[in-house]
Parts: sequence; C-alpha cells; structure tokens
Amino acid sequence: MARFLLTCVTVLCSIFLFAQNEDSILIRKIADDIFINGKAYGNLTTLTKTVGGRLSGSPQMVKAESWGQQTLKNAGADKVWLQECMVPHWVRGGKDEAKFTAANNKKEETLDILALGNSVGTGASGINASVILINNFDELEKRKDEIKGKIVFYNYKFNPRFVETFYSYGDAVRYREFGASRAAKYGAVAMLVSSMTESVDNNPHTGALDYNDSFPKIPAAAVGLWDADKLAKAITENKNVTVFLKTNAKMLPDTVGHNVIGEITGSEFPDQYITIGGHLDSWDPAEGASDDGTGCVHSIEILRVFKAIGYKPKHTIRIVLFANEENGLRGGTKYGQEAKAKNEKHIFALESDAGGFTPRAFSFMLPADKLEKIRAAWIPLLKEFGVYEFAKGGGGADVSPLNELLQTPVAELIPDTQRYFDYHHSRNDVLANVNKRELELGAINMSALIYLVDKYGF
Amino acid sequence: MARFLLTCVTVLCSIFLFAQNEDSILIRKIADDIFINGKAYGNLTTLTKTVGGRLSGSPQMVKAESWGQQTLKNAGADKVWLQECMVPHWVRGGKDEAKFTAANNKKEETLDILALGNSVGTGASGINASVILINNFDELEKRKDEIKGKIVFYNYKFNPRFVETFYSYGDAVRYREFGASRAAKYGAVAMLVSSMTESVDNNPHTGALDYNDSFPKIPAAAVGLWDADKLAKAITENKNVTVFLKTNAKMLPDTVGHNVIGEITGSEFPDQYITIGGHLDSWDPAEGASDDGTGCVHSIEILRVFKAIGYKPKHTIRIVLFANEENGLRGGTKYGQEAKAKNEKHIFALESDAGGFTPRAFSFMLPADKLEKIRAAWIPLLKEFGVYEFAKGGGGADVSPLNELLQTPVAELIPDTQRYFDYHHSRNDVLANVNKRELELGAINMSALIYLVDKYGF
Repeated sequence: MARFLLTCVTVLCSIFLFAQNEDSILIRKIADDIFINGKAYGNLTTLTKTVGGRLSGSPQMVKAESWGQQTLKNAGADKVWLQECMVPHWVRGGKDEAKFTAANNKKEETLDILALGNSVGTGASGINASVILINNFDELEKRKDEIKGKIVFYNYKFNPRFVETFYSYGDAVRYREFGASRAAKYGAVAMLVSSMTESVDNNPHTGALDYNDSFPKIPAAAVGLWDADKLAKAITENKNVTVFLKTNAKMLPDTVGHNVIGEITGSEFPDQYITIGGHLDSWDPAEGASDDGTGCVHSIEILRVFKAIGYKPKHTIRIVLFANEENGLRGGTKYGQEAKAKNEKHIFALESDAGGFTPRAFSFMLPADKLEKIRAAWIPLLKEFGVYEFAKGGGGADVSPLNELLQTPVAELIPDTQRYFDYHHSRNDVLANVNKRELELGAINMSALIYLVDKYGF
Repeated sequence: MARFLLTCVTVLCSIFLFAQNEDSILIRKIADDIFINGKAYGNLTTLTKTVGGRLSGSPQMVKAESWGQQTLKNAGADKVWLQECMVPHWVRGGKDEAKFTAANNKKEETLDILALGNSVGTGASGINASVILINNFDELEKRKDEIKGKIVFYNYKFNPRFVETFYSYGDAVRYREFGASRAAKYGAVAMLVSSMTESVDNNPHTGALDYNDSFPKIPAAAVGLWDADKLAKAITENKNVTVFLKTNAKMLPDTVGHNVIGEITGSEFPDQYITIGGHLDSWDPAEGASDDGTGCVHSIEILRVFKAIGYKPKHTIRIVLFANEENGLRGGTKYGQEAKAKNEKHIFALESDAGGFTPRAFSFMLPADKLEKIRAAWIPLLKEFGVYEFAKGGGGADVSPLNELLQTPVAELIPDTQRYFDYHHSRNDVLANVNKRELELGAINMSALIYLVDKYGF
C-alpha cells in the first residue's frame, strides 16, 4: 500500500516546484485541461476501435483519414485539409502459415508467423524447403555455400544489456530489413527472422523489409520468440529440419494517400509554421495504438487544448497526420517537398512516434548553444510533468524531410521505452496497452514545449 | 517505427555516460547480470502463479513463506529464517454481492463490489436499505440528520490534477479508511465507497478500513468506477434508491505469521545491518503482483546479484519479506522492535512497495546535507538506469519502525506512478501487468544503491 510513499512523493514533487510565473501558470492550465477535459484517450479509442489497423493504401486508411479530418475539426482547427501523395500499397492477402518437421520427429510443429511488410508471397502452394539456422551476418558469410535452395532462419535476438530498447531494436532490425536479400544473394528461397522484440509472449512482430534489387525477392516472415527458440532447438538437435511456409503478400502499384492537416492560424506570424505530427498509417496485425495512434492523438490534443484554454499562438500551428511512415516515409517526404516548393518558413517541427508511455525527455536537432539555453530555461517548467532531459538527437522520421530540405529545427518526444517493443507491429498494439494518464502526460509536455517555442523561439 | 529515434536515444544515453571508474564498472556488472541472468521476473511468476493472493493469516501466506525461504536459499543467502509475529486474520468469507433498485425503475442493477479489508459482514440475509449519496465529508456533516438507517455511498473520486497518483490516493483514501465509522456515527447501517483508482475499467479495489471503536462497526465495500457512476446517477435522478448488500467478511482472532529473512554476512562489519524489503502479504482479489510481489523479488534479486557477481558486502545485508503490511504493519513493527530489543546496529533500510514500474527516483529520510552529498555523487551513476532524483521523504511503511525506534536512515524506490492504482488491490494486480524489463530496472537501481551505501555510507 505504500502509505509512507505519500510523504516522499510530496517532497519529490515539491522540489520540482518553481516560482509561479506566467509560463508556469499557463503550463499548469494546459495540464489541468488535459487531465480534466482531455480528448486524447477518447480519440485514440475511436481510432483503434472503429478504424483499427491501417496500412497505407488500405480501405481502413481512407476511414482513418475521415476520422482525422473530423477529429481535427472537433478539436477546433481553423482549417482542415488533405494533402495528396502517392503511397506504397502492400497487402498481406490472407493468413500466413508456417510449420516445421524435424527428420527425427515426424510430428509437424506450427510456427506463429507474420509475413514482413513489402515482402512477396510464396504462391498458393507455399514453399517447402530445408531450413538453415543463421545466428548473425558473419555466420551467413561463413556458411554462404550452404544457403542455396534453403530457407534461412535468422535467430538474432535483442541484446538485453541496452537500457533503452531502441538501441536493441537498432542493433537487431537489420536482420528484418536486409536479411532476405542477403540470403537471396546466396540462393536462399525464403527467409524467417526472430521477431524484433524482447517480450515475454510468442506474438510475431511484422515490419518493413527492404529488398536489394540486385537479388531475387524472396518471401520473408517474422517468427514469435517462443517458436523461434523451438525451431532453433530442433535445428540444433537434428540437422535435417524442413519448413513449410505460405504467405500471400503482394506489392501492388502505388496508390493515392493523404496527409491529414489541420491548423490554427498564427496571430502575429501567420506565414511561419510550427508542425506537430504523428503518422496515421500502421501495420495490420492489430490497432496501431502505440504505433502511432498515440502520436496522432498527442498532436491533435495540442490544438484542442490551445483552443480550449484560449491560447492564441503567434505562429501558425499545423497538426499533420502523416500518410505513410511504416513502409516508405512518403507522407513526411511529400510534406517537406511541398513546404520547400512553396518556400514556406517552418520554425520548428515536433513528432511523437515512440508511444504514449510516460515522457522522460525530448530530443532536439539544434545547435549545442541553443540546446543549452533551452535546457536551462525550460526543463524546470516541464520537470513536474515528467520531462527532465533535452537530448541532442534526431526528430521523428516524418519531420526529418523538413530538417533536410529547409533546415527546420526538429524534435521528438521520448517516452519511457521499456514496453514499446512488446507491442510494436504485433497483435498486442492495442488500446488496452495504452495508459490514459501516461498518454495525457505526453500531450501535456508536447503542448508546453510548443507554447514555449511559439513564445520564445530558440 | 521511429527510425530517427535511434539517433536521439543514442545521444540521450551518451550524455548520461560518465568516466569509467570502479563504481560505474561494478554497477554495469550488476545491470548486465540482472538483464541477462536475472531471476526477479521468474521468481515473481512463481509467487503469483503458484501462491497467488496472500492475506495475512491465510493458507496462501503459509505457502508464500515457504516460497520466500526457498527463493532466498536459491539466491544464495548465507542464512534464512522465519521471525514469528502475530498478524490480523481477516477473511472475506465468500462472494460479495450488491444490487440497487430505483423507485422509478424496478429493474435491479448489479454493482461490482469488494468488501473492504477489516470490515464486518452483513450477515447471511444481507442488508436492504435506502442509499444516500455523499460526495465528501463536508456534505456528510451537513446532511448528518439524513443518515440514520441508510447505506452511505461516498462518491469521492481521484483528483486527476495531481501528476503523481500517490497524491490522488492520499487525498481520496480517507473515505475508504474512515468513511464507515464517520457514517456509523450518524446511524448509517452500511457504507459503499467509489474505488481508489483512476482506471478506465470497472474493477472494484479493496483495501483496509480503520474502524473507530466509539461507533458501531458497519459493513463496507468498494464499488467499481462505472458502477459508482451508475449508482450516483440513479440516486441523483430518483431520490428513492435502495441497495441490497451482502458481504461475508469476518475478523478472526490474531494468528501466527512470519517475516521471512535471508542474509549475507558482512565481511567487515557483520554486526551492522542493511535491510532491504517488500511485504509478502497482499489483498486477495488477485495475485498481489505489483503490491507487493515486485518489492519482494526486487529485494531478493539484490542478494542474488551480489552473490552472482562475487560482490562481498562489508555490512550484513538482510532481505526481509515482511509478514503483514496491508492491514496492520505487524511485520515491520516486529522487525523494528526485535532489532531494538537486541540493540542491533542498522545503518540503512530500503523498501520497494510502489510497484515494478520503471524507476525514476529514490526518496530518503536523511539530513539535508547528507542527501545533498549523495545526490551529487551517486545520481550520475544511476541516471543511465533511470533514476535521476533523490527526494527528501519517507522510506517504505515496513522499514519505518526501524527509523522510529533506532533512527535508521530509510529510503524507498520511487517508480513511475501512473499505472500503480490501475491494479492496486484489484483483480488486475496480476503478473501480466508487470513488465519484465521495468521490474529489472528497479532491481538494478536498488542493487546499485545498496552497493554504494555499503561501500561509502552516508
């Protein structure tokens, strides 16, 4: 029950208190409105439960665009519109199947798998082939003569020593992204990869692969962790293991998608823009709650709370629900290109694409002296709400073209990372794995940051 | 997918890097061993799945004591023993039931409830009475003449404006603790209270009440939030609402319980003690995972990792799984009293009783100058693992008698608080709501702190 924690938390908070000034009063107003009247969780509920998973090019994505427009209008946007862009159109095409049989045990064992995004299918009759266990790319190179005609199974796991899970992902994801083509180079007929997660369950985690056009495109799928261990054990104990794999995936021609944009016109500098966004597309196994429904509703909530408390931003605040991040970054690219073509002045862009968990930091792509300045001035205002660090680093993927094309300073919300890859691209990326208050704290810190940038600049 | 976060997290982490010194190397060794070979999650799995909920005095508590002894031995304790103490023996006695009927709508509506801990039952035939909605104690006093013969329903909710949920709990819990006797003073026949949570579900949350012996002991139960709203609405719309309440609870005579203790004997100061603990007892609706299974396995993990990496503490390290925190604090009281009676020298005590969520801070009951000193020296060593603040505040409930009786400096782990009251004392306090890595980070920070205290003192 932790009775005594009461006193200590009291003190923990009180040391974060600061002189009541205009900024702290306004940020408290933002927080109160989001905690009491917030719509982020309700909006996420509607998106996840009435639209669900929404791959670029899918009918659900069209529904999601309507949801986005309506939700931005309800939040009080002065203007809402769609920005057209061409998006990839990959379809899963049906239930993915895999089984394996070891020569010393004729019993077929089922593998829980998901075809990787952008992958080709096996054809209706599937692929039946001997499987080779490859633990890393070094081993692939050493055993390249054994690959031909086989299914390559990469069993490279997250390294648990990394404290931040995005490191573990960054280290392991090359097997999902590039493993198929590297195996195809040596004649592999398909590829399986242990899922990009450190979760305690067996759900497979999909995600984009990136074919190298120099080699044949082979089918590829992610395997749940328990099943990956089972398969690795069978191969280790009995060299002769065959896998049957059937995936129905197909890459169709590019199709039309849209960035959904809503804005509040700036009161002093209507032609200077602050962009805030998340990506509306998601993978298909679940509801795209944490990736990146949370970023979408975080962003919309900023607009809503500014309207609700009567804060009139000096600059034009644009909320962008990007059309396609997962397998092409077409939404962010289009937005950046059009901004450049129109010679727009973008003073800042902020993304939320790391989940709706309790915030700990923001990362900024800013010169060191400017970062140092805002650290000293602004962290004391945010610390009460959980953000205690401004790191030097990237912004989100979708806002990166603005930085590349227009040198716009960009930033990203950094929530606690421990649970992100339990859900990411899997059946578990559902509303039930988002906590209402943690989500709200993200929106509070983002709103506070936007208020400070709008008021003071860098 | 947040590709770009990779860079920013890299930088976020790198700014936390510090010169490699003996302490940082040893703490990294602790972290690696816990991340790679850790037993905290496995131990919690066994406790929650083979023992489950474990009220003081229950047969499950006897099983839990055996689990604790065996797990401490497996972790490598030099010595394991039981310290006997008398504990309260409250039993729920069967399924709690409640229904209400509004005069304008004869349809009975069921309420999802749980009798409060320490409460008396209604008797086999239950209580059927008119219900009065009371929003707070001020209203109770104003309407004291209307209470007689009625069931008082307190509908005081968590205040969402508090950032830290232990504040909201501290503010609201007086209705659960003292509401029954305050209503009985004016002749109420039973009490219902809106659950102590801000969760998005309808699970009722039990917990201890504290009868005032000057007034009759009346039955009391917590109502799930949705049902509390339903009942409040019915009462507001139609003054004449009756509730049927049946609870089977009983307080039996005190019985024998035990603190489970394991220790590593100190290499230099075997007669000087550092105590680390959590409480082994829990409420009965679920598995007592976060309250306080996590504190128990955190504590045991410290002993395990010291043995595993070959760290020989100078002082004797005692792990204590306290017998009874939830409805009496008898375990901590006994431990403190015996330490005083034996004139033991206790140099520090640390508790984990706020869940297995990602750690953010420790709170210390220490003089300001000493706290300032360890802030400057030790936070840089912990920040990489999530702890960025040492607050001035209380230790845990179970170690508080050591502070009161022997002036031992005490501290408590402060994890992120947002999810704690979603699970606390409800059906949701299960293993599935504990994240393995978040749990491990708690154990890492606690182990590192104990290492520093053992080596440097205050």
